[in-house]
Order: sequence, then C-alpha cells, then structure tokens
Amino acid sequence: MNTIVNFGKLALAGLLSLTLAACGGSNDPVASDTSQAAPIAKAKPIEWKMVTTWPKNFPALGTGAEHLAQSITAMSGGRIKVKVYAAGELVPALEAFDAVSRGTAQIGHAASYYWKGKVPAAQFFTTVPFGLTAQEMNAWLSQGGGQALWEEVYAPFNIIPMAAGNTGTQMGGWFNKEINSVADLSGLKMRMPGLGGEVLADAGVTVVNMPGSEMFTALQTGTIDATEFVGPYNDLAFGIYKAAKYYYYPGWQEPGSAIETFINKEAFEALPEDLQLIVRAAARQTNAEILDEYTAMNHSALDTLINEHGVILKRYPDDVLAEFRASTERVMEKVAANDPLSQKVYDSMTRFKQNVMKWSDISERAILNARSAD
Amino acid sequence: MNTIVNFGKLALAGLLSLTLAACGGSNDPVASDTSQAAPIAKAKPIEWKMVTTWPKNFPALGTGAEHLAQSITAMSGGRIKVKVYAAGELVPALEAFDAVSRGTAQIGHAASYYWKGKVPAAQFFTTVPFGLTAQEMNAWLSQGGGQALWEEVYAPFNIIPMAAGNTGTQMGGWFNKEINSVADLSGLKMRMPGLGGEVLADAGVTVVNMPGSEMFTALQTGTIDATEFVGPYNDLAFGIYKAAKYYYYPGWQEPGSAIETFINKEAFEALPEDLQLIVRAAARQTNAEILDEYTAMNHSALDTLINEHGVILKRYPDDVLAEFRASTERVMEKVAANDPLSQKVYDSMTRFKQNVMKWSDISERAILNARSAD
Repeated sequence: MNTIVNFGKLALAGLLSLTLAACGGSNDPVASDTSQAAPIAKAKPIEWKMVTTWPKNFPALGTGAEHLAQSITAMSGGRIKVKVYAAGELVPALEAFDAVSRGTAQIGHAASYYWKGKVPAAQFFTTVPFGLTAQEMNAWLSQGGGQALWEEVYAPFNIIPMAAGNTGTQMGGWFNKEINSVADLSGLKMRMPGLGGEVLADAGVTVVNMPGSEMFTALQTGTIDATEFVGPYNDLAFGIYKAAKYYYYPGWQEPGSAIETFINKEAFEALPEDLQLIVRAAARQTNAEILDEYTAMNHSALDTLINEHGVILKRYPDDVLAEFRASTERVMEKVAANDPLSQKVYDSMTRFKQNVMKWSDISERAILNARSAD
Repeated sequence: MNTIVNFGKLALAGLLSLTLAACGGSNDPVASDTSQAAPIAKAKPIEWKMVTTWPKNFPALGTGAEHLAQSITAMSGGRIKVKVYAAGELVPALEAFDAVSRGTAQIGHAASYYWKGKVPAAQFFTTVPFGLTAQEMNAWLSQGGGQALWEEVYAPFNIIPMAAGNTGTQMGGWFNKEINSVADLSGLKMRMPGLGGEVLADAGVTVVNMPGSEMFTALQTGTIDATEFVGPYNDLAFGIYKAAKYYYYPGWQEPGSAIETFINKEAFEALPEDLQLIVRAAARQTNAEILDEYTAMNHSALDTLINEHGVILKRYPDDVLAEFRASTERVMEKVAANDPLSQKVYDSMTRFKQNVMKWSDISERAILNARSAD
C-alpha cells in the first residue's frame, strides 16, 4: 500500500485517515431507502460493486461515492444495488482501475491521475497546473470534446469514464518557512506529487518523494519544508496544521480537480437504456454535489485553522506565481510530447482554455474582483 | 403579453426572437427516443405538460427545457411523458407559474424573478446584484439552506422549485455612449428591469421602462442610451449589436442567474419515490448542462461580435463599479425589508455570501488572477 503515495495526494487519505475510516457508516446504505420506491423491480436486482480510492466516509469524496451509489439504487427503483468498498476493503486503492477493467468490480470512484503510470493521458482529466477551473472543466468535458477524448483514453481498458465530483480550486500547500520571492524557492524541499511536483522541480525546488505516513515527521524535523494536500475542509480533518504553520494560496497546481466514476464497459452496456441514463445522471448529480460541499465547507474549516490553530494564511508572491506559470508551460509541453494520446488531449484542453479564459476574464473573474472591496 | 418586459430581460425572448422561434424543432421530441428504453413501462404513462417562458429552442434556455423533458422521459423508461410548450403556446410566458400552481401544467421552466410581483422573495433565487456566482449559488441552495427557503417561498402556491440551469456571469449591457466615470451616470437613460434597475436609479441613472419590442428603435433614436440583456451567446442571436456599439462588463447586476424548474406539488407527490428522484436528478443535470453551454459558447459569440460586427468591449471603470456596489447595499436592504420572507431569504443568502466570498477570494478568484498574464 505504500506505493499509493506516489500517485497523488488524494490517495494519501487511504494511509492517514484511520480516525476518519473508523467513523463507520452503514454497510448497506441503500437497502432501507429503496424498498418503497421499487414497485417495478420484479426481476432479481443487478448487483454492482463500487471500488474507491477513499477511506470510508472521507469528507466529500468517500461520502460522495456513497451518495453516488445510493442515487443509482434509488433512482433505479432498486433494480441496481451498488455496494461501496472503501480503499483496501476489496482491492488496494490503486488497483481500483484494474479491478473495474477486468470486471472484479463494475464501477469505481477515484481521480484519474492515479492511473497515469498505466495510461499517461489519464492525468489531464483530473487537472493541469494553471489549467481549467471546475466550471470550465465541466464545460470542456460536456461541450468541448473532453468527454469523447476521455472515453478514447479509457477504451483500451474496457472502461467508460464520467465526471463525478470536483474539489474546486485547492490550496497551494503547507510551509514551515515563508516564501517571499523566487530566490526562496532555491533549496526549498517540498513534497508534491504529480504534475505540480514536476513544475516545482523545473522552478528550482527540491522535490521530495516520500510515503504520506512520513510526512508529519519530515515536516517537524525539517527533512522537508513544505507539502501540499487538498484544501481547508480536508486538510483540517487531516491535522496537517500540527506540523506546519504557513498555508499558501492559490493552488496553482490544481485549479479545479475533477473526480471520476469509471464503469466496466460490458456491465454498463448490459443495462437497458433507461438505467444507463440513470447512472449518467447520478454521476452528474454527484459531480455537482461534491463541488457544492467543498464550496460551502472550505471557509469555516479555514476559519478554524486560522482562529483556533494559529495557521497563517499567505498568498504566493507575484514573481513566484509567474515563475511557476513559466515552468508549467515548459513542463506541460514535455509531458504532452511523451505520447500521442497525451498530446491530443492536451491540445484539445489548451485550445479550449485559450478561448474560455477570455470569457472567464470578463465574467467570473471580473465580477469576483469587482465584488470585493479590495 | 407586453407586460412581460417589466419582469426581466430573459422574458424578452418571447417578444423579440421571432426568428429563433421559427427555427422549429420536433413537436414531440421525447417520443422517438424512449421506445427502446421502456421495457418496464407497462402502465399507462403519466403525461406532464411543461410550460416555459422561452421561445422554442431559444439557445441554452429553450433547448435546456427540452433536454430536461427528454431526460425525465428517458430515465423513467417512458413512464413519464413530458410535452414542452414554448412561451405563449399553452399560456402566456408570465402565466406559467399560475398554470403550474393550479395544475393546468405539471411542470415549468423559467427564472424565479418573473414571479416577484406575486411573491417578492422569489427574485432572490435568480440572482442579486454583486451576489453569488453560479458555483456559489449552487452551494447555497444545496448546502447553505437555500433550497429549503425556496420551497418555503413557493409552498403557498402549491409548487416545488428546483434549480435547473444557470447563465453564469452575464454582461453589463449595451451602450451608445462611453461611461468613463461616475459623472457619466447622471442623465444616462438606460433600460434595465428588476433589482439592477433599482440600483441604477439609486446611482443617479434615469431608468426607462419600455416594451422590449421598442428597445431597438429607442436605442437608435437616442430615447435610451443603453440597455442590458444576457451575454454574448444570447445577445448575438438577438442582434442588439445593430443598435448599440459599446458592450460593458462585468454583469454586476447578474453575477450568476439561476434558472428554475417548478413542479405542481400534487403531481410531484403522486409519483413513486424513484420517479421523484429521477425528476430531481434530471433538474440537476439540466442545471449543469445549461451552465456548461454558456461557459463554452460565450467566447466565440463575443469574438464574432467584436471581429465581425465591430462591437467595442469595455470594462466599467472602478469608480462606477464602486458606486453601483454602494447603491446595491442600500437598495437590497430596502427590498429585503419589504416583507418578512424576503428579509429571511436575503439574510440567509447574505450570511452565506460573507463566508463563501472569503473562500472564493483565495481560491477561484486568486487562480483566475494568477492564471492570466495581465
């Protein structure tokens, strides 16, 4: 299970949140809700297993997977029963993709960048540094050709992907020393997996790879100066504030990370059309619900971090952000050039971004700036 | 039908877009899609009429209503058939709420601020000047108590509301003269309905109320200097650029306008639980789809306006935005104080905004600013 930490910090959940995992939850959350709603479910129900990369009831993500399963069962009038397995319950977190590919499970809930070792183009469907926001990502997937490309990327694995959550813009990370200029990046030791880590390395940061279980001690002893995770809602639950003091924004490395559900192709295609559409709508509903939860919950968690735990909120200096932005362009071009499918996906996403940015600049960005007094 | 223009510019669609209305579309768009998906539909289908405030196939809104209807029918395996009526086909646009209230139609698709004459608190569920963005509005509704309040506001009318679309941040409006400072507001004659118009009046603008059908001529003859509408995707189709040259942003008056579906309570409660959940999921899906469409389509429409029609894009000056923001606070306090339910809704929304803004400032706002070079 230790390899999990090299694939993305969301997967750290599986290692660190033993307390959260112990919170429990019903083993079969759907059974009691649907008996009344199943007047037409005369045939034996279809039984699906859902494997996830989250601890049971991990805020927003583990609970989001449960809601997705419950929605499918309830909307289908009990014709599909979905049993959710937390990370490690049926298969280890990072074997969820394989389990759905071979049909051991019929459906999964995770983040696509966990599978980049197997299929490099997968990581673009989570997020890209300085890339699309949640609203823009949804628009690219449904209107800009993103969904068709995602299906193309997963097709060789017998898997159909759908967006089923988004974290919104994340935080930049936890630091034990201040970053006042680009000069402070040199010699900085930071733990950051994925594309963000590659960008940091390009910008002169010493990127340290280590199991998540060692992260706290490493921060406390100075083996690393900094690490990143998700945002206030998850980070507060994880207790990272106990090992680091400065909390930087914005999360340039993850402007809007999409969460996915992925379904075994034969299992999906065996469903009648109404049930296929119910599964798609349940994914779309979960996609919105998870973003709603992060959007609504992050502020009060941040407030607790600052006012109860003495965390100091800091913005990355402009020149540091400019450096990261320049590094991102270099790194992304290299990553995209690694294989033709990555290039194809990156090109589509980049074209969409170039256009949608011009609109976002004068709409959401302009109103967010005009709305605040500062 | 002329009174329609006093209630909101989206409703203008019903008057102005005869060309669009003539685009046609199938009369019964759901029938052919669902025959295959209805293996379990043995009982006689439930037949619902959907009344809307949009012209048939009006981009994003009229087409969104059609998609909503199709989704309900297809996901229900044909157990509910929904026939969509464009504005004026079954009842005039602004009688849609009454039609659903009394059960003439079972479901509607509109914007809640059209009903403010009947129930003043309704308008808060569309948008408020300098208020919530689309992402924040969704979070308030589903996680911040907004949905429960909306149900309370519509309960006396025997109607259950659900979010079913969002325009995202709109544009500030079309002008025939430049606005370079607060001084230019004095004597400016602008057509703007609703809360935005009340704010303009407070800021010293001469707000002109006129039927939408007179808007073009009024702009051309100088009877008015300015008018607002939606955003590039809809405004291009309407041809407003033929009568005005300057196109201002941001749309401070509508930072993220929610579109609604509203359902007759008895009709909804007569459904078994699985069908109720299908209707709710279809609304949630439409809520996302419409925002996706605006997000993806606005840029190219704006590009056409600028490069093919010579439209000049302008940002409101800072001091003008500050003036509008100050007027908004005064006006909203007065509007909220008009009745206890408005006050209750506005207080909930304002508390949520105060918190979510602090998060948005360091997440979406900060990344949108850091992402752009300027």
